[in-house]
Amino acid sequence: SATQTDPYGLYRVLEPQGVMPQAAWRVDNTPVCHDSEILIDVEILNIDSASFTQLKTAADNDAGKLADGVFEIVRQRGKMHNPVTGSGGMLIGRVTQIGSHIAERGDVKVGDRIATLVSLSLTPLSLRKIHRVDMRNAQLDVEATAVLFESGIFAKMPDDLPDRVALAVFDVCGAPAQTARLVQKGNTVVIFGAGGKSGLTVLAEARRQSGTGKIVAIEYGEAACERVANLGFADAVLNLDATRSADVYQAVTAALEGNLADVVINCVNVPGTEMSCILCAKDQGTVYFFSMATSFTAAALGAEGVGKDVHLMIGNGYCKGHAHHALNLLRETPALLAVFEQKFAGR
Amino acid sequence: SATQTDPYGLYRVLEPQGVMPQAAWRVDNTPVCHDSEILIDVEILNIDSASFTQLKTAADNDAGKLADGVFEIVRQRGKMHNPVTGSGGMLIGRVTQIGSHIAERGDVKVGDRIATLVSLSLTPLSLRKIHRVDMRNAQLDVEATAVLFESGIFAKMPDDLPDRVALAVFDVCGAPAQTARLVQKGNTVVIFGAGGKSGLTVLAEARRQSGTGKIVAIEYGEAACERVANLGFADAVLNLDATRSADVYQAVTAALEGNLADVVINCVNVPGTEMSCILCAKDQGTVYFFSMATSFTAAALGAEGVGKDVHLMIGNGYCKGHAHHALNLLRETPALLAVFEQKFAGR
Ligand SMILES: NC(=O)c1ccc[n+]([C@@H]2O[C@H](COP(=O)([O-])OP(=O)(O)OC[C@H]3O[C@@H](n4cnc5c(N)ncnc54)[C@H](OP(=O)(O)O)[C@@H]3O)[C@@H](O)[C@H]2O)c1
Ligand SMILES: NC(=O)c1ccc[n+]([C@@H]2O[C@H](COP(=O)([O-])OP(=O)(O)OC[C@H]3O[C@@H](n4cnc5c(N)ncnc54)[C@H](OP(=O)(O)O)[C@@H]3O)[C@@H](O)[C@H]2O)c1
Repeated sequence: SATQTDPYGLYRVLEPQGVMPQAAWRVDNTPVCHDSEILIDVEILNIDSASFTQLKTAADNDAGKLADGVFEIVRQRGKMHNPVTGSGGMLIGRVTQIGSHIAERGDVKVGDRIATLVSLSLTPLSLRKIHRVDMRNAQLDVEATAVLFESGIFAKMPDDLPDRVALAVFDVCGAPAQTARLVQKGNTVVIFGAGGKSGLTVLAEARRQSGTGKIVAIEYGEAACERVANLGFADAVLNLDATRSADVYQAVTAALEGNLADVVINCVNVPGTEMSCILCAKDQGTVYFFSMATSFTAAALGAEGVGKDVHLMIGNGYCKGHAHHALNLLRETPALLAVFEQKFAGR
Repeated sequence: SATQTDPYGLYRVLEPQGVMPQAAWRVDNTPVCHDSEILIDVEILNIDSASFTQLKTAADNDAGKLADGVFEIVRQRGKMHNPVTGSGGMLIGRVTQIGSHIAERGDVKVGDRIATLVSLSLTPLSLRKIHRVDMRNAQLDVEATAVLFESGIFAKMPDDLPDRVALAVFDVCGAPAQTARLVQKGNTVVIFGAGGKSGLTVLAEARRQSGTGKIVAIEYGEAACERVANLGFADAVLNLDATRSADVYQAVTAALEGNLADVVINCVNVPGTEMSCILCAKDQGTVYFFSMATSFTAAALGAEGVGKDVHLMIGNGYCKGHAHHALNLLRETPALLAVFEQKFAGR
């Protein structure tokens, strides 16, 4: 059985036994610091977009009811792991204790303000109070203690950016970092949900990488489209429902004058958009599904069904240096930073 | 609205409107040949493994009840698209008619015996009779008419191999073809479900590509492990339950003397194996999920949760030349051909 120095925190798993904390139905959230753990005094929980949408619907848009729902999930599971969407989110807080086994690591000390970059879906959380629910930004101000395992990634909070901006960008920082890897100079890129949190960072990064390549941004609704257009990174901004694959295919090929994309990146927060993405990719192109609403079978069978030889990638939330990369993207892209400040920094 | 020369068959979609045939709940299965279609007199339906397992369970392992279940699905949906698993399968039959719009294509003629390589989940099917249910091989002998759209991929049946062997290998032919692309000379490869239909082809192909690299095969149960070991392609055959990630991690690192894999390929037919695969991949390695039982969120959040910077790929069932590639793999690997003949050719 697992020792309390296991880097993955296996000893915190209560049921079922023998699985990892993320797969566990319930973990031990006792707020004590084992040898390979870091204890965090939590200030803010930043709930994953898909999860928050589900919680809001279940609570009829009532903040108080939503808070009750969060308490109930944490009471049952020992972590803020939405049982419907399967997703979590992340948190911000101050380090209060560091286990003896990792004390010599040197990249963190007691008193540091950090954001955990692993999902809340595997983070033991002892939740005492919810002070405030920010319905617009999916953030909760709380009084709580969280446990970070040795393998758990985190980032120190920057001092040149507002907390809430850093937190918002950390939540999606895998997306721009993966975009930087995927998009080559001159590539044609199509971005679904380009006006959302992850979509905006992907759009800015795609423009940096592609240079003069064509970039098509897809968003739903006038206001979101205008926000995207104002950034000036996209060659075309299409106001489209991403679930309507036939419409999407027609509009994108028209915008690209009959061509298709080298890279398609899906950043929407609704189900049913796999086929639209696949149809927009050229032969041997890549579709990167960052959206957690992606269905594995819809993507795999969809591509086969239309005979498309494309690479289908699952959006791994982690990639080395992703937090640092995303902060620098904001710092080096004032127009993007301005949108993030306006969207997330206001109280 | 869609014309009857649309290559994706949009005009056959009945509900909901505006989606592709695979996403449709119900398609028009009228057995007539529109301009961009090929009509096929079906002989055999080869049901996808995940779907057949579900059908068998629902039918209490009774062949007659299972046939009723298949009839009911086709009656409701106009296609053999399992509503529980979301998956389909493929078919074999003879071309009886070719639409005027694609008559000049030249790669197919009336009378050809072909296998459709697109999923049954989007293939309009008019099912008249089920003659026999082969419980062991998930195949049904039927009397039916199917429609292949212009974009629908297919393969001519080879005359040097038994039908059922060709059909079995076509069903999974995306897997070895993708393996050939992914595995480089000298790579370390871990294969989950290496004793199954797709797993066996992946194992053989991985050995061809990797050369002297280490290959670890994971299977569950003595018999399956012996079958794999007898092929002689794997350096280690581990008898493990792939859902037990902690056990898998320990056994694989032991077999690889503390190392991890460049490429991990998942060919199991059960859910809950994402984390095991992720833990076996080295930094910047690739995990290829061919299994349709893969959960998108479990994979994406799983990798993030343990801070693994790995490429997570959705197994696209199609890749150019995949049928041809798989047939040649069998022809050039007598030991593999022998297993397929023994497993699938027998009546
Ligand atoms: N892979 C990972 O590690 C990871 C990490 C974080 C988040 N995510 C996932 O990534 C997705 C996006 O997250 P986010 O924080 O960027 O969410 P977000 O800010 O809510 O952005 C989603 C965007 O999609 C747009 N959209 C919604 N429905 C659409 C439709 N039918 N057609 C076109 N656009 C549509 C939204 O437009 P409106 O605002 O007009 O509705 C919004 O701009 C979520 O599924 C989230 O769970 C994944
Ligand atoms: N992406 C695509 O386009 C595509 C196309 C075709 C099929 N598929 C999918 O690929 C998967 C495999 O298909 P297949 O035809 O190869 O199926 P299969 O022949 O049934 O092989 C599955 C293998 O996994 C093994 N297995 C089951 N549970 C296990 C466990 N807990 N631990 C270790 N091994 C375990 C099975 O062993 P036992 O025999 O001992 O149970 C079997 O050898 C299915 O999910 C199927 O839907 C995908």
